[in-house]
Amino acid sequence: MRGEFDLIDTFFKRPLQRGDVLLGVGDDAAMLRVPPGQELLVSIDTLVAGVHFFPDVDPRTLGYRALAVNLSDLAAMGAEPAWATLALTLPAIDTSWLARFCEGFYTLARDYNVALVGGNTTRGPLSITVQIHGFARADLVFRRAAAKVGDLIYVTGALGDAGLALHLMQSGIAECSEAHRAYLRARLDCPTPRVREALGLRALVHAAIDLSDGLYADLGHMLAASGVGATIQLAELPQSEAFQACIQAPSVASMLKVEDALPWAELMLSAGDDYELCFTVAPGRAAAVEAVLKEFYCRYARIGVIDAEPGFRCVHEDGALYHPHRSGYDHFSAMPSA
Amino acid sequence: MRGEFDLIDTFFKRPLQRGDVLLGVGDDAAMLRVPPGQELLVSIDTLVAGVHFFPDVDPRTLGYRALAVNLSDLAAMGAEPAWATLALTLPAIDTSWLARFCEGFYTLARDYNVALVGGNTTRGPLSITVQIHGFARADLVFRRAAAKVGDLIYVTGALGDAGLALHLMQSGIAECSEAHRAYLRARLDCPTPRVREALGLRALVHAAIDLSDGLYADLGHMLAASGVGATIQLAELPQSEAFQACIQAPSVASMLKVEDALPWAELMLSAGDDYELCFTVAPGRAAAVEAVLKEFYCRYARIGVIDAEPGFRCVHEDGALYHPHRSGYDHFSAMPSA
Repeated sequence: MRGEFDLIDTFFKRPLQRGDVLLGVGDDAAMLRVPPGQELLVSIDTLVAGVHFFPDVDPRTLGYRALAVNLSDLAAMGAEPAWATLALTLPAIDTSWLARFCEGFYTLARDYNVALVGGNTTRGPLSITVQIHGFARADLVFRRAAAKVGDLIYVTGALGDAGLALHLMQSGIAECSEAHRAYLRARLDCPTPRVREALGLRALVHAAIDLSDGLYADLGHMLAASGVGATIQLAELPQSEAFQACIQAPSVASMLKVEDALPWAELMLSAGDDYELCFTVAPGRAAAVEAVLKEFYCRYARIGVIDAEPGFRCVHEDGALYHPHRSGYDHFSAMPSA
Repeated sequence: MRGEFDLIDTFFKRPLQRGDVLLGVGDDAAMLRVPPGQELLVSIDTLVAGVHFFPDVDPRTLGYRALAVNLSDLAAMGAEPAWATLALTLPAIDTSWLARFCEGFYTLARDYNVALVGGNTTRGPLSITVQIHGFARADLVFRRAAAKVGDLIYVTGALGDAGLALHLMQSGIAECSEAHRAYLRARLDCPTPRVREALGLRALVHAAIDLSDGLYADLGHMLAASGVGATIQLAELPQSEAFQACIQAPSVASMLKVEDALPWAELMLSAGDDYELCFTVAPGRAAAVEAVLKEFYCRYARIGVIDAEPGFRCVHEDGALYHPHRSGYDHFSAMPSA
């Protein structure tokens, strides 16, 4: 590893909390032990200043978020998190920035028992790449391609909060209450990776995906991989209280209005960054699934069903089709560049 | 995984060549099987435009190099490569650039039986992060901290080629022959990860490290981790024919001259990017080690010994100490920014 800054040792070398880390930060590679009978699950993700976050964001948020979006990928597989590596590119050494970044990172890492086992720091435009490693039994892994006709489609939490938060920040609209705006902003900055819920749902779920790019896009990936379609009940899409309150502010509604689109529906279907879990379940397992989610105090909604006919259909309560516009919500495109 | 560009599928999804990849590119995470009785070795490294390479470099070289520097980390552990992930940040989609990048990446990946199992592409300033994954038996892993007093110190290949190449490029000196400059440039662009040699040396080596930041710095890391020192014979540092020829060109020598420093020694000790292996061996195993390296047609040099006295000592043939200056060779500092 090249380490122009050699900051990983200083900031990220902490006492090992996991017995399966045989060598952590400080050698040419980390040495790790995967438990017998389990498979290794890995996912890598990059956050770039000006693309995925505002360059002036609180570094604590950034440290949290960089790990959270990766944990969310493991949740989408039903895997148990274990180790992370971090490749951090920084324009300059700013120790107070780094200390706050670490604080955010380790807040979440401790919470999910994740050990940072390696990484490197490089000089360059601000960007953060985290790779997460976890375990799962092969027969219990949630796969995108495993959705079956007749499955019920669930989502955890609420949809559209992160997208609405970004919209409010970018447009400077201050119509809604401070508390509601703060709630939405926290959902954008610090998404909850649904790791524990996913582990609780093992052996109950067919297919799963995490919602990083919005329900329409992400569920679309699952449908394509599984060779099936879906019908989604618009009225069942779960809204947070803050979302309900802010979306009704006249200026929000008018600003989000695209032709004959429904602003709330567009945000819930097409805005990303919620990092909730979307998964499918055989109808006979619905009761068991709901019992697990209640045990975790996790909000959930049954939003639709998997059909044999390919495609993604959204329907109103009266059965009329709604066609998402999906325009104007490439939400990071308006971000200032780094 | 967020994939603004969704290019990984298009460019990097290839038929799987390894049976231990249970799920590759295309799900939320890759699912991989570590062989029973082996440990997982991981290393992550980032190359940033303007810091680690010239922004106008041939993308084929970049694809090759991004994987090579990671393979070199596995070589330094004595581990067998298996899987890679790639996080690619690109200012724009340039399909011919991507095709050439892939060509370079897969040239090396095929050669070492490495499967690309996941990744993501993001919009932003050009930067490439690769994480490599490999296996080794815990008792056979080369550790930085395992150097023992009395060990012989070896390096593979020749030292200083990459540093001299960079110096020639940056200063525009054309005194040496075209062939020699091309040779040096190839050593900089396409380093040889010493993976096969390292695997051949398992059970023979005590400590090892790969030379990314130069012998002085990297061997220094090993000495510090092992709590020992070293005496290096300057005359034993291995020079390539091209290095010998070019270093003697008067303008090269004068340009590299720092006070009373020896330009060749400074380059060989302090310039990075050679990605050769430096390792220590009990004297009784020297013959076995040399037999293995000969079998691989790998040049090697026995450059010194591990001492009990901490520190890094370089000595001339007459025993006089040479003090490396280590100044003026932060060689990427002069690179144009991206």
